[in-house]
Amino acid sequence: MGSFLPQNLYEMSNTDKAQLLENLQSQYTAIQSQNLHLDMTRGKPSPEQLDLSLPLLTILDEKHYKSENHTDCRNYGILDGIPEMKKLFGEILDISPHNIFVGGNSSLNLMYDVLVQAMLYGVPGSITPWKNEKEISFLCPVPGYDRHFAILEHLGIKMIPIRLTDEGPDMESVISLVESNPSIKGIFCVPKYSNPTGVTYSDAVVRAFATMKPAAPDFRVFWDNAYVVHDIDFPGDNVLNIFTEAEKHHCTDRFYIFSSTSKISFAGGGVACVATGEKNLEALKKHYSIQTIGYDKLNQLRHALFFKNGEGVLTHMKKHADILRPKKDAVIQTLQEQFSNLGILQWTKPRGGYFVSIETLPGCASEVVKLAHDAGVKLTPAGSTYPYKNDPKDTNIRIAFSYPSVNEIHKAMEIVSLCIAIASLKSMLARA
Amino acid sequence: MGSFLPQNLYEMSNTDKAQLLENLQSQYTAIQSQNLHLDMTRGKPSPEQLDLSLPLLTILDEKHYKSENHTDCRNYGILDGIPEMKKLFGEILDISPHNIFVGGNSSLNLMYDVLVQAMLYGVPGSITPWKNEKEISFLCPVPGYDRHFAILEHLGIKMIPIRLTDEGPDMESVISLVESNPSIKGIFCVPKYSNPTGVTYSDAVVRAFATMKPAAPDFRVFWDNAYVVHDIDFPGDNVLNIFTEAEKHHCTDRFYIFSSTSKISFAGGGVACVATGEKNLEALKKHYSIQTIGYDKLNQLRHALFFKNGEGVLTHMKKHADILRPKKDAVIQTLQEQFSNLGILQWTKPRGGYFVSIETLPGCASEVVKLAHDAGVKLTPAGSTYPYKNDPKDTNIRIAFSYPSVNEIHKAMEIVSLCIAIASLKSMLARA
Repeated sequence: MGSFLPQNLYEMSNTDKAQLLENLQSQYTAIQSQNLHLDMTRGKPSPEQLDLSLPLLTILDEKHYKSENHTDCRNYGILDGIPEMKKLFGEILDISPHNIFVGGNSSLNLMYDVLVQAMLYGVPGSITPWKNEKEISFLCPVPGYDRHFAILEHLGIKMIPIRLTDEGPDMESVISLVESNPSIKGIFCVPKYSNPTGVTYSDAVVRAFATMKPAAPDFRVFWDNAYVVHDIDFPGDNVLNIFTEAEKHHCTDRFYIFSSTSKISFAGGGVACVATGEKNLEALKKHYSIQTIGYDKLNQLRHALFFKNGEGVLTHMKKHADILRPKKDAVIQTLQEQFSNLGILQWTKPRGGYFVSIETLPGCASEVVKLAHDAGVKLTPAGSTYPYKNDPKDTNIRIAFSYPSVNEIHKAMEIVSLCIAIASLKSMLARA
Repeated sequence: MGSFLPQNLYEMSNTDKAQLLENLQSQYTAIQSQNLHLDMTRGKPSPEQLDLSLPLLTILDEKHYKSENHTDCRNYGILDGIPEMKKLFGEILDISPHNIFVGGNSSLNLMYDVLVQAMLYGVPGSITPWKNEKEISFLCPVPGYDRHFAILEHLGIKMIPIRLTDEGPDMESVISLVESNPSIKGIFCVPKYSNPTGVTYSDAVVRAFATMKPAAPDFRVFWDNAYVVHDIDFPGDNVLNIFTEAEKHHCTDRFYIFSSTSKISFAGGGVACVATGEKNLEALKKHYSIQTIGYDKLNQLRHALFFKNGEGVLTHMKKHADILRPKKDAVIQTLQEQFSNLGILQWTKPRGGYFVSIETLPGCASEVVKLAHDAGVKLTPAGSTYPYKNDPKDTNIRIAFSYPSVNEIHKAMEIVSLCIAIASLKSMLARA
């Protein structure tokens, strides 16, 4: 595949640009007639990745259904997780099992539950339930994860976008807002291989979260460690342990740290957890003891027996990495071949996680997504990575590379590149 | 074992009663020295019952993880349940699969979620979210299930006790309150083998729920069909299909019908569902699409493959019945031998479910529970079966017979009977 755009793009006359555009548009029409169906929308594991965990399905049998403390996992009992699953998450997160609550299959559901509890009852330190406050806000590093934003919007919590830098959220803005405005009740963070940029927070950023002095007595950081062991290139990025930092500054209750095995074992058939300080944990257990009889301990036991310990998880994740690496490389390679030094596109080069994020020329992202869609390549809707689906400059597109095959990715990225080229040319001509 | 109390109890002189009491108390002291540990508190299946479902643990393997519509159950996708699990619940409840939402492992959690959704957003027909109403109430047939009451209390919903008759809730009171008072937003019902009485609702009671004209436009019936296929004696009780009645009167959205396989397969490792009208279902799915990525479809598939269909569930439940029958009979037999025709105790004789409920002389229930506890037999705390744990006459005790062995039940019920005899005699002497 050759480049769609020449290296001297910015020196071309408008007539030449228009000619080039026409040429690209006829290539586009040819592709449209191929009736392709390629999907790069979803951060979901491929079947090959899921196959890695197939032994989970048969690890329990008529002799193996009791936890190490002799609890019959087939029956009622134990609200906060069997000991071996707490230990396993403890090793994954490097946090004491005592601070861990093991929930159902969805960390998103845990985040939702914690937020609902805060709305209805407040959290330790709250003066009143959040629902009774006149207005409350959350800071949202952008671009970010649409499902976080959807929960906040659904609960009527105002979202304030914060620029995500290469080192994490712009902490100057975060600190200035959090320390001055008591209506700011929290922030959503994905500290490692952030969705969608792949940015990993620097040590300074992590430390700042533990040392800041929030104006709200019940300010909370929702630390979504979704990609904690999801390295693709080795060594992977390293994130400072936020819980250790919080312990140093006696503010462990400022943090809810979420994780799950959804992209380690089975997506949707995994186990989720939240780690937090003693007071939060006590409140959490009180609420959950009303809300549910308890979670599926059999699935916890499956995971504990299959992975054995944190080391077992890391070994397993190397196999995921081997599957994901050529896919991620295919995305980045295409972008490099097509757009290096042209000045019309930026893209991230994460060492792990599930996404590559691109920045188009202003106003081009939704046009690219539409063009790609009409040529048979589904992309995450433009705007999704911003609160209220509002990407003010219309530049960000999330590329999910995990599910399609390498061949499909090559094909899809060629088409996406063509769409970027067309949208960029149109934009340049319109502004000329 | 002989009777603790003579048939001429009511004709005995106080001196003779005091003598008898002294005699029973020394028997009690002798039992105390045995250091027994018997537990009749929990409505949880016994290991033998759980063994019936052991094949569930190995029914999925490296070749079996796709649903009938080719969905890979190991991956994300499908919010409301795989088709075969909807069908299975449809056959269990005799409701169209189209009206069924399959959730996680806990029907209690579904009830909590639906109530939280009502609090935060209202339900279809609500003028305002329930949290914004000045005061809202639920009717609570008593004695009832403590976990229902705990959720209502936690959410600050006022509970109004309604007498449970042998045919179901006292519908004259229910209708009069619901039709006149718009602040009454709902009622919790266990229509078959009600917890703890074992009462099954009559056809007239079921019909009345479909024909009543609630004052509140968003009145809801939480129909907890926890024991829908949990017959012990055959034929079991038959409950009129509330959904069919609701369809006749165009009020399917008045009902949320809950069920789960917790006491069919594995308690805590089962699958739960809610069936309801179109508008509720649409609202429910909207909320859940924000709250979670989806539930564990692998466990749904396990259940669908193991039970195959409603008939398979019924065949399976006959095996449960064979295990439970001698236990239930042991409880009732002891009570009959000890207290027939004495006029100091009433007990229920349910044909299914998980409990026998007893009514002591006024003011004796908590004394019996305390005496039993101190003699090594744990019973559900007195008062638990009433809102706010307040049994106004202090008469109701819930006996859970499923978990202990028949021998343990005989032993435990002998001790409980002794405690009833002692508490009753004391009460009679105090009032003499």
